[in-house]
Amino acid sequence: MEMNNHISTEKYAADISSIREAQVRIKPFIHITPVLTSESLNTMSGRKLFFKCESFQKVGAFKFRGACNAVFSLDDDQAAKGVATHSSGNHAAALSLAAKLRGIPAYVIVPKNAPKCKIENVKRYGGQVILSEPSMQSRESTAAKVLEATGATLVPSSNHGRVISGHGTIVLEILEQAPQIDTIIVPISGGGLTSGVAVAAKAINPCIRVLAAEPRGANDAALSKAAGEIVRLPETNTIADGLRAFLGNLTWPIVRDLVDDVIVVEDEEIVEAMKLCFGILKVTTEPSGAIGLAAVLSDSFQKNPRWKDCRNIAIVLSGGNMDLGVVWDSFRS
Amino acid sequence: MEMNNHISTEKYAADISSIREAQVRIKPFIHITPVLTSESLNTMSGRKLFFKCESFQKVGAFKFRGACNAVFSLDDDQAAKGVATHSSGNHAAALSLAAKLRGIPAYVIVPKNAPKCKIENVKRYGGQVILSEPSMQSRESTAAKVLEATGATLVPSSNHGRVISGHGTIVLEILEQAPQIDTIIVPISGGGLTSGVAVAAKAINPCIRVLAAEPRGANDAALSKAAGEIVRLPETNTIADGLRAFLGNLTWPIVRDLVDDVIVVEDEEIVEAMKLCFGILKVTTEPSGAIGLAAVLSDSFQKNPRWKDCRNIAIVLSGGNMDLGVVWDSFRS
Repeated sequence: MEMNNHISTEKYAADISSIREAQVRIKPFIHITPVLTSESLNTMSGRKLFFKCESFQKVGAFKFRGACNAVFSLDDDQAAKGVATHSSGNHAAALSLAAKLRGIPAYVIVPKNAPKCKIENVKRYGGQVILSEPSMQSRESTAAKVLEATGATLVPSSNHGRVISGHGTIVLEILEQAPQIDTIIVPISGGGLTSGVAVAAKAINPCIRVLAAEPRGANDAALSKAAGEIVRLPETNTIADGLRAFLGNLTWPIVRDLVDDVIVVEDEEIVEAMKLCFGILKVTTEPSGAIGLAAVLSDSFQKNPRWKDCRNIAIVLSGGNMDLGVVWDSFRS
Repeated sequence: MEMNNHISTEKYAADISSIREAQVRIKPFIHITPVLTSESLNTMSGRKLFFKCESFQKVGAFKFRGACNAVFSLDDDQAAKGVATHSSGNHAAALSLAAKLRGIPAYVIVPKNAPKCKIENVKRYGGQVILSEPSMQSRESTAAKVLEATGATLVPSSNHGRVISGHGTIVLEILEQAPQIDTIIVPISGGGLTSGVAVAAKAINPCIRVLAAEPRGANDAALSKAAGEIVRLPETNTIADGLRAFLGNLTWPIVRDLVDDVIVVEDEEIVEAMKLCFGILKVTTEPSGAIGLAAVLSDSFQKNPRWKDCRNIAIVLSGGNMDLGVVWDSFRS
């Protein structure tokens, strides 16, 4: 029997080659975001933490990486008809900016209840906003009409090979900036970021643990891992508005096979982590963005013997778009 | 007559040599803070802006550079007796951490009305807090007693050669990170940061403009420049609690000779700049820290023909320590 530590990732919607190609493709457009460290947070967590600050990415979130890769992968004829999405704010803003940079239209179906600053972001970056009802059904049917009318290409926020590959570029940067890391913690929602990170990390070094973090009120990824199949919840309830999506047919196999664990945290822990990001790291971090820090400070992580050897941990602070009033209300409650 | 574009800085309390020495001395202890850029803020200002993010410096402010240089410049006998300061929070926290790193005591006289998070910071970094009345007189007399009892070395927050030299290291980093800059804007209070920045910048490239920014309610530096001598105000009134100090005998000559102008802004402009730091840059920035952005967006700067050729501007975001409640109240008012 041949021993082989290398984990093959060829069967998935993204692999290390597509991620390296993405890095070259999006390099002219993205920010290389800094990795910050804090002795205070190291002391609190008992680990060395490396914060990959995607709050500073263009449009204020990692989503720009995947959107940019998807838009610049289109051939000219396809591209000319534009792109569309019915996803929530950060991906929508990211797709708008990527489309603007390519000089093509972006049609964005946004649920009416999205945070105001996210809708503003879409407009600021030149996206054409079409409001729908909050339900996924209404978002999808509105999108279908737009696609028919324009011939635009639908770019989902997570369940898409080019998007996953774009998000995976985060790992290539982290491993240059903090080569000593042995663990990466990412927020999980639709699984696009988690998938890209897992594929890249495991291909480069299978010993790196990839942990996903999700809120108790939208713990579908943890339930899916436990059930061995995609679980969708009848409803979600969390302050982390960016983490309410479910896994798709492309992200699920990667999450199933390559993610070492899903750490579930309470909303209170997320709010506490946001305060630490604001007060100690000095980085504006939306609830979804702060969940990785919440996870590493949680009992679920700290008391789990499986993770006691995680010493050098990269935490992806995934984004920083939020209304200050919402934050403040959560801090006071 | 010999033409000489080089500006001599030898007659001041710091020069380019002492600043380069400081850089070597403090390198093991400080963060090399990132320079962030934002297309949105470039568009708003009509310039290219390079934000030097000292909010991410240890203790959350540039003050650590000067304090660290002062503490590690002491000989062992002096150092063993400790250091002391009667200055406001950020310098106090910085001196506490620098002393802790050297294994010596730091005695910190803090006015009772300092923001809570700044006092917490001092304690967190191991400083021994001694509360005084808010008046400068009470702070100085309390400090005198402490010095007599301990034999500690007083390290002022601004008016001190080693402190000025430490702060000047910011310029050495900026010129590596963004060599194209033609202008640097810094907040001015006691003048330590401004002096260090001005000495370093003018010694390396006399064509770089050094502009200081200060609030209308504590505009002593502008008045001093106009009067040709140090002006002290009977009282100050500004949200920028870090900018209420006056120039000293060491900082004044540098500010007088090497600072091209002082830009005075209103508190409303400072609050607006803080919102932009929070919402667009995603960097927690205290009022004093955001004043450079306020200045570059102000009419005083934008409409002044002297500054129309300032195209690539470094803005020192000097610190990020503040109580969230205070910020929120200012945002709503």
